Amino acid sequence: MENFTFWTPTKYVFGRGVEENTGELSAAMLGGKVLLVYGGRSAEASGLLGRVRHSLDSHAVEYHELGGIQPNPTDDRVYEGIDIVREKGISGILAVGGGSVIDTAKAIAAGALYDGDFWDFYCGKAAIAKALPVGVVLTIPAAGSEGSGNSVITKLDGMIKISIRTEEVLRPRFALMNPELTFTLPPFQTACGIADMMAHIFERYFSTTPGTDLTDRVAEGVLRSIIELAPVVMDDPCNYDARANIMWAGTLAHNGICGTGRKEDWASHAMEHEISAVYGVAHGAGLAVVMPAWMTFMAKNRPERGAQMARRVFGVENPVDTEAAIEGVMKLRKFFKSINLPTTFDGLGIEAPDIDLLVSRLHANKGATIGGYYPLTAAETALIYQLAI
Amino acid sequence: MENFTFWTPTKYVFGRGVEENTGELSAAMLGGKVLLVYGGRSAEASGLLGRVRHSLDSHAVEYHELGGIQPNPTDDRVYEGIDIVREKGISGILAVGGGSVIDTAKAIAAGALYDGDFWDFYCGKAAIAKALPVGVVLTIPAAGSEGSGNSVITKLDGMIKISIRTEEVLRPRFALMNPELTFTLPPFQTACGIADMMAHIFERYFSTTPGTDLTDRVAEGVLRSIIELAPVVMDDPCNYDARANIMWAGTLAHNGICGTGRKEDWASHAMEHEISAVYGVAHGAGLAVVMPAWMTFMAKNRPERGAQMARRVFGVENPVDTEAAIEGVMKLRKFFKSINLPTTFDGLGIEAPDIDLLVSRLHANKGATIGGYYPLTAAETALIYQLAI
Repeated sequence: MENFTFWTPTKYVFGRGVEENTGELSAAMLGGKVLLVYGGRSAEASGLLGRVRHSLDSHAVEYHELGGIQPNPTDDRVYEGIDIVREKGISGILAVGGGSVIDTAKAIAAGALYDGDFWDFYCGKAAIAKALPVGVVLTIPAAGSEGSGNSVITKLDGMIKISIRTEEVLRPRFALMNPELTFTLPPFQTACGIADMMAHIFERYFSTTPGTDLTDRVAEGVLRSIIELAPVVMDDPCNYDARANIMWAGTLAHNGICGTGRKEDWASHAMEHEISAVYGVAHGAGLAVVMPAWMTFMAKNRPERGAQMARRVFGVENPVDTEAAIEGVMKLRKFFKSINLPTTFDGLGIEAPDIDLLVSRLHANKGATIGGYYPLTAAETALIYQLAI
Repeated sequence: MENFTFWTPTKYVFGRGVEENTGELSAAMLGGKVLLVYGGRSAEASGLLGRVRHSLDSHAVEYHELGGIQPNPTDDRVYEGIDIVREKGISGILAVGGGSVIDTAKAIAAGALYDGDFWDFYCGKAAIAKALPVGVVLTIPAAGSEGSGNSVITKLDGMIKISIRTEEVLRPRFALMNPELTFTLPPFQTACGIADMMAHIFERYFSTTPGTDLTDRVAEGVLRSIIELAPVVMDDPCNYDARANIMWAGTLAHNGICGTGRKEDWASHAMEHEISAVYGVAHGAGLAVVMPAWMTFMAKNRPERGAQMARRVFGVENPVDTEAAIEGVMKLRKFFKSINLPTTFDGLGIEAPDIDLLVSRLHANKGATIGGYYPLTAAETALIYQLAI
């Protein structure tokens, strides 16, 4: 096991009606003047934004708004938010939405306190030393951004999609998580969220660090729970307990508890980021395509972890690692198909992917080799993209 | 699933040599003048206390000392600590040790800022509104106090042992966890710690709340990991990875992650507290005696959770709940015996336990019925104590 720091100060308030606490927690943790960041029509139409505004008003929290944040959020909205923060003297950022909204809120929170261009943090020119406090009302269980110190933003110039991770400074101060808010998520978005949270665990599970048995067992437990409850939320979208377990799983998948003490991988995320940057697909759907292809490559080249996952999570009994790992990939693909996710480029609506473009962008943005479990060269990432056709 | 709040702001710094960060973290999180609380000879003899003092000196943190805290810590040392805090103007408490030391530090931290008698918090007369910050250098993985908001103190007058829980205010600001510091723990103390952490999970696992599948899976994962690695640390006390996994398991067992979203039990802890208060036994050894007896009763009266645990943690295949639960108890007793823990009063050195005394104290201190999974009357707690003979 490697040395690690695990620091998750987020106050999770979870359950029915918890969005009623928005005003009280914002007043206590975000200060008296917040920037309310949100996405599209659904939060307005459902009445959620109205309840949030009312709760802020009730606690005398002044707010300004930045709405219309899109999936795969872009730098232009971050600059816009930073301008509002500076102009209005905003004391904290309140994100109402899913990962795209939260990641935008985090970028604004850090960028507003930085003299240079916020993109410096994403392109590696600067580290985030401080940020305004961020609070969250979560509506989409997927990205895990409500509990993570991470943020993913796409730079419009060149459509460069970059993920950053901080130990603690970008972790939200609070996250209000009402599973009922997810009852109306469309099935495809629910399924994409499930693929995303599973991928967050896989990226941590495929590791060369020995002796992290406890972290393995926790990660396998979260995976098993997701796999068992995914069919329930797909069949019965208003099943409170199933939605609640899936929502909490999305947080545990990405707050770091499934990765303590070991080197991680993250090649599949990097490979998917290029697909969604170039083709504009949903991140979760892209992951459902890339991860099995990546695992197929690993079954041949480094099968140990895939075999353990196949046995412990999917109940595969084959004693030969390479074969067990391949059986695990087959079961994973079958699972993704069962919740109507694509598992090939074709299913993403990309009939002839430009693999040369994806590979050249990938290694230009992320380096000569990609991934901590097995560092992939350009020839190898090209092969994995091929395996996804 | 029930609504819950999960708030664990503790900064865990885990791994080899992390005690070298004591001065830096104390200066940042405990203020400039700390009370250094510790236990007996081992921390001094091993050189740990010397390294801690050196680290404090290096960061210009002034410290005063309160040493010699005993297992099953008592209120007299808390009063002594509170006096030092007030006299010296202490800004934070640094605990170097295991649960007894940390729990004493927490009681001092809360009591020093309270106008009345700190025991008011333990006997239910007052709730803790504020406390000085507490930091930890952990030497014994067992109580989980390094990550919990809990504290257990025994009042010498009447030997009343009471546990309290706060949501966040008593959680340590940081916990420095170096598994190497546990290499020299005596085998009995190692085993007692293992029983204690398992009990912390069982108390949360035996629940009447439906629909907490994810929490189940996480709890089962931590239990499995403990059961697999316990023989390794017993046979090979200097095995770093095994010690590291056991140490981290002790934290996860009690920081709340194994209990999210459900009602908990805690009858076994209450029953054990009377045994250790009356007979002065080690808490973990007492739990190894009480928990199987309690589970035996439950196998007959409410077998569902015991059966699930038996199947998922111990691999029992019996489809009949009552029988599966009993098989689980047998495997648990066998496990405790394998790490040389007692499973009967006799093994604790108590040949003729005064069950009437234990039962009358228990219900006088904790109420007419005990436990959230199955509220036990005095006749039933007497029967369970009988089952432990």
